[in-house]
Amino acid sequence: MDLKSYLVERKKLIDKEIVKYLPPFPEFGFRLYEAVKYSLIVGGKRLRPILCLAGCEAVGGNYRNAVTPACAIEMIHTYSLIHDDLPAMDNDTLRRGHPTVWYKFDEVTAILAGDALLNRAFEVLSEWDFDCKVKIEVMKEISKASGMLGMVLGQQCDMDAEGRSDVSLEELLFIHRHKTGRLITASVVAGGITGLGNGEEIEALRKYGDGIGLAFQIIDDVLDVVGDQEKLGKNVGSDAEKGKVTFVTFYGVDGAKKKAREEVEKAVEALSVFPADKVEPLVEIAKFIVEREY
Amino acid sequence: MDLKSYLVERKKLIDKEIVKYLPPFPEFGFRLYEAVKYSLIVGGKRLRPILCLAGCEAVGGNYRNAVTPACAIEMIHTYSLIHDDLPAMDNDTLRRGHPTVWYKFDEVTAILAGDALLNRAFEVLSEWDFDCKVKIEVMKEISKASGMLGMVLGQQCDMDAEGRSDVSLEELLFIHRHKTGRLITASVVAGGITGLGNGEEIEALRKYGDGIGLAFQIIDDVLDVVGDQEKLGKNVGSDAEKGKVTFVTFYGVDGAKKKAREEVEKAVEALSVFPADKVEPLVEIAKFIVEREY
Repeated sequence: MDLKSYLVERKKLIDKEIVKYLPPFPEFGFRLYEAVKYSLIVGGKRLRPILCLAGCEAVGGNYRNAVTPACAIEMIHTYSLIHDDLPAMDNDTLRRGHPTVWYKFDEVTAILAGDALLNRAFEVLSEWDFDCKVKIEVMKEISKASGMLGMVLGQQCDMDAEGRSDVSLEELLFIHRHKTGRLITASVVAGGITGLGNGEEIEALRKYGDGIGLAFQIIDDVLDVVGDQEKLGKNVGSDAEKGKVTFVTFYGVDGAKKKAREEVEKAVEALSVFPADKVEPLVEIAKFIVEREY
Repeated sequence: MDLKSYLVERKKLIDKEIVKYLPPFPEFGFRLYEAVKYSLIVGGKRLRPILCLAGCEAVGGNYRNAVTPACAIEMIHTYSLIHDDLPAMDNDTLRRGHPTVWYKFDEVTAILAGDALLNRAFEVLSEWDFDCKVKIEVMKEISKASGMLGMVLGQQCDMDAEGRSDVSLEELLFIHRHKTGRLITASVVAGGITGLGNGEEIEALRKYGDGIGLAFQIIDDVLDVVGDQEKLGKNVGSDAEKGKVTFVTFYGVDGAKKKAREEVEKAVEALSVFPADKVEPLVEIAKFIVEREY
């Protein structure tokens, strides 16, 4: 299959759909609205929503049913980036090739825009016109992955590790699994739940998600060292600058790439419960994650 | 009825229950957990959860069924305070008689603790063992009130208004209705939905909530001018210090108190659809809101 076209088409779909989930323009305080809108339209890869749609199709579902959870997940991912970029946090001025929200608007608006997006994700999921029980299962999956048992915990640990040279591999894996892994896994799984996958199928998707999630972050660490700033669209070398312990610290660039490839193999292996044609995109995405340059 | 005992008993219940909604203690990053726990146990009035339980009882429901949404709402209220106190926002060091979360821990942990709490509220609501359709209706109500159509929008507008002397009464009402009003209304309404109230009952609770919500904020503005810092547990005179336009600016202290009383009368009037014994607590709370000193 032509992965590039697939990703372009699916990104176009998400780009088009996600802005429909903005609430009406408010009478006052529209700076907040503008910041939220800006954050949604500046060019992300839309990896998580794409995984969600593909997860739905893997179990034989119609991907269009998964658009709402896909967009909700992308809102959550986007909020996390807005907060991660804040001066008190990573203090980044550039993201996805554009000024970060706090840098373009202001810190107050950025804090609130992040809050608004996290909240909006749950508004959207609540209002989603779909089977009640499925919605609740999807919300359980997503909310558990994004919160203090998942992404937010991972971010706390990541910040705690900053400047420390005594971060163990165990701790580093914990950081990666939570900060990035949980939401990536939830993306695929939420898609599978939406597509009415059975227990075995959902667990297979979970294994796949866990594998590519870890691989994704390992490659993120690799690209921070060897990546092209223009392609990446964000400041390169920032990990080293902050004396941050990463996967590259433990394995070196080549060792890290090898580890990422192993994780991807495990992930693809997990998909063997599905008919090959139903999971071709997921397989190709897994390979892309280790081969990507941005 | 003895409102004081009622509030003390209900607060005790919420204080006891809310900590049960904390997730398990994590292997790493427990500073986040500690900050979240701290924020939940330092002495709030628990007004919103108390309103939620009372709203449930107003429609003839069992208040124990409303404990989960009540605690979720209090988590959302608590997160909003953590973020409001941040250096970039109101920069407060004291809240509820105790150091604010950023001041006690650090700014990073406070940003994340707020995020964690907002997220946790939706985890808790998703996992709530209750009728699926009711859960969804409750989540719609709460999430709409807390986000960029509600509380977060109100906070943006409040920050936009800071330092400006040209804030109109219309804008000020917008701020109050969103920043504080929406979540207070949602508290009562969520309780009513949990108790399986009918359309007329829910609308009556909504009117009540809107009325006391506005009254509450008016009195908040009054107390910022004339309150006792020790009783309030937070910095007094901070509005004036920041040159903030408040309800007192337009109406003076006495005029503002009068307006608050009018709103409370309307709120109590709305409760006439209910048997008097079922809404006695709500009526007494409404009166308390205008008579309180903290």
